[in-house]
Amino acid sequence: MTTELSPDALTGLLERARQDYQDLVGRGLSLDLTRGKPAPEQLDLSADLLSLPGGRHTAADGTDVRNYGGLQGLPELREIFAEVLQVPAGQLLAAGNSSLELMHDCLVHALLSVLPGAESRWVDQERIAFLCPIPGYDRHFALCERFGIDMIQVPMTAEGPDMDVVERLVAEDPAIKGIWCVPKYSNPDGVCYSDATVARLASMNTAAADFRIFWDNAYAAHHLTDEPVETAGLLAACAEAGNPDRAFVFGSTSKITAAGAGVAFFGSSPANVQWLLGNNAKRSIGPDKVNQLRHVLFLRDADGVRAHMERQRAVLQPKFETVARILDAELGGTGLATWTSPKGGYFVTLEVPDGCAKEVVRRAAEAGIVLTPAGATHPYGDDPRDAVIRIAPSYPGLAELEQAIEGLAVCVRLAGYEQQAG
Amino acid sequence: MTTELSPDALTGLLERARQDYQDLVGRGLSLDLTRGKPAPEQLDLSADLLSLPGGRHTAADGTDVRNYGGLQGLPELREIFAEVLQVPAGQLLAAGNSSLELMHDCLVHALLSVLPGAESRWVDQERIAFLCPIPGYDRHFALCERFGIDMIQVPMTAEGPDMDVVERLVAEDPAIKGIWCVPKYSNPDGVCYSDATVARLASMNTAAADFRIFWDNAYAAHHLTDEPVETAGLLAACAEAGNPDRAFVFGSTSKITAAGAGVAFFGSSPANVQWLLGNNAKRSIGPDKVNQLRHVLFLRDADGVRAHMERQRAVLQPKFETVARILDAELGGTGLATWTSPKGGYFVTLEVPDGCAKEVVRRAAEAGIVLTPAGATHPYGDDPRDAVIRIAPSYPGLAELEQAIEGLAVCVRLAGYEQQAG
Repeated sequence: MTTELSPDALTGLLERARQDYQDLVGRGLSLDLTRGKPAPEQLDLSADLLSLPGGRHTAADGTDVRNYGGLQGLPELREIFAEVLQVPAGQLLAAGNSSLELMHDCLVHALLSVLPGAESRWVDQERIAFLCPIPGYDRHFALCERFGIDMIQVPMTAEGPDMDVVERLVAEDPAIKGIWCVPKYSNPDGVCYSDATVARLASMNTAAADFRIFWDNAYAAHHLTDEPVETAGLLAACAEAGNPDRAFVFGSTSKITAAGAGVAFFGSSPANVQWLLGNNAKRSIGPDKVNQLRHVLFLRDADGVRAHMERQRAVLQPKFETVARILDAELGGTGLATWTSPKGGYFVTLEVPDGCAKEVVRRAAEAGIVLTPAGATHPYGDDPRDAVIRIAPSYPGLAELEQAIEGLAVCVRLAGYEQQAG
Repeated sequence: MTTELSPDALTGLLERARQDYQDLVGRGLSLDLTRGKPAPEQLDLSADLLSLPGGRHTAADGTDVRNYGGLQGLPELREIFAEVLQVPAGQLLAAGNSSLELMHDCLVHALLSVLPGAESRWVDQERIAFLCPIPGYDRHFALCERFGIDMIQVPMTAEGPDMDVVERLVAEDPAIKGIWCVPKYSNPDGVCYSDATVARLASMNTAAADFRIFWDNAYAAHHLTDEPVETAGLLAACAEAGNPDRAFVFGSTSKITAAGAGVAFFGSSPANVQWLLGNNAKRSIGPDKVNQLRHVLFLRDADGVRAHMERQRAVLQPKFETVARILDAELGGTGLATWTSPKGGYFVTLEVPDGCAKEVVRRAAEAGIVLTPAGATHPYGDDPRDAVIRIAPSYPGLAELEQAIEGLAVCVRLAGYEQQAG
């Protein structure tokens, strides 16, 4: 990524970067690009939710949604998201307000109960490991760390995880029980898994009979262009390949309706769904069905979800365009950075010269621009190249976002040229 | 409990019971007394909840409740329930829709993380046991069974668990890590723990340094008389006794607002609250704060809760009076049964002659009256005396309840006299 610069040219560029950085610090900014948080404007799109269900309290089958029960969640809500998540409604479970909770609980139940196909509880096995395509989502890694699950890094390609590596590892090591996947508009680099990747994941030989793909389809409906990406459905592919119990599909409306007050989903084979329902039955007398009815009345059907996501896109797309425009204007041709142009999702990945990411984040913080910590995209927060920075453009307004990305570009120039100057 | 009856008298009584039972079966009833489920009329008392928060989406401190975050829950909701649950708001956590989930998760985290005061994770210890005052709540017992936690039965007295037994057991066995308590209007027999019981629980010596009292205060505000029972606060008592980390307090609005769409609470020492928050932070990006704001706007303050519970009482009290009236009329003086007259809560406990409970429940089911399975009030569903039946009068309407209790009384007479006749 480095360019040949004469010593004089470098001195001039570094001088300018230092001056720009001083100016930046002088502006006393206070901006936050850390998290994939919806902006208030996006939440306002679901304002009607806040008065629903109004006078209504019965589900389509007459169930009183206010009372206990209904562990699998409202059938009519599962119908809507069956299409979005590519899981038959009968194999879908509608739960609380967080898909991360469902992932956590699937790990807990696998540790403390016996998964279909498993020989014993994971907690009774000497070692449990998960494959972690990198860069990836820090909260996935934090779950592994919290439960003492070893993380084995796998490089990402433009089509998903490097399947040659994945296939080799899972074939030889029975301790590898799972892989984290964000199959569409991945966090953080916006990769969409190819059909070939999905097919290979579904059909590969695994040494562990109880291997599971944690398929976090967080951005299934979160397009940013006129050409929504379609990815192959994992659940059907696994069933066809004779591995019906391999897929755990997760999704939620957190970035569709309300980030803190949405509905999360789990989809899998009948055996896995029964396993989770059986464990959930000990834990709860049922999810918040009032909130589920609220979502049914608000979203109506899968077309309603699509129409709503077009309104979300109208808010988000200009922000992603702003990031691209400024990075191009400020860093294009410098040889100091590359960045992604995702067709959906919530993030832009910025790659800076090796050894510079932490310095860029530190400099930005000093100038009042808070970024996700460098390294967060890697297990244990450790990016061995120290090169990847995740940008989350959704929350700030356009004007603030411009300031933040301009400031970030200054920090990249400063750190990059300082490194080159030695 | 048996009375002296001449053979002739017994024959006559048995004959009448058989005739009454035939008539009962002929009526083709279909009634359900199994669960402590609020009636629709009770849920209607919170109808306004279904249109809230309406146009409002900010908490008192300006937090946008629609977005991520706020792991401890809305401060203003915690303020309201601090008084109800006898836990300072700062040590209270407002979570999802189920306190059973919180109890489950506390067990999970104690199994898989290290509790304050613990030497190791519970899962790494050879044996874990809990004290189970009986009769008790089947869902508590089911959690122990699910996690392989041994259950040691302790008899209930009119003042709570038999503390002589409790003190002796916990002092000598370090594997005993907890006790299940429903301190007010207990499930199923409506016992309220005396101040002496609370003081002894708080101050007793336990062999396990990580002993916890699972204080399921499910009926804290659920009075059925003009003389609301006040029980001593466990959390403060534990702190005073030098055992600040001993109490895990649970509660919820499930039987205050909506059974499936309420808010659950956890209260404990600062160390325990930090422990749970730390574990929850890996699991979720925060609870449904919209639902918490909804509850704040609807209930307003602790006085609002009290006023609301008076309206709940107006629905429930006639049902409990109906149960008492019919049992007295039909079974009084027969020597075949005793029953509780709770001052709050959701249940009446009916004791029939030893060896008769299952038969009564079976006969009732054949006549279309579904009762909680006999034995459910004991660990592993096994009541060694086969004598305890839990009646849940809340859900049916008054007319249906009358029919059900009349029918139940017939079944008690039939099973009781048949046993006496040999």
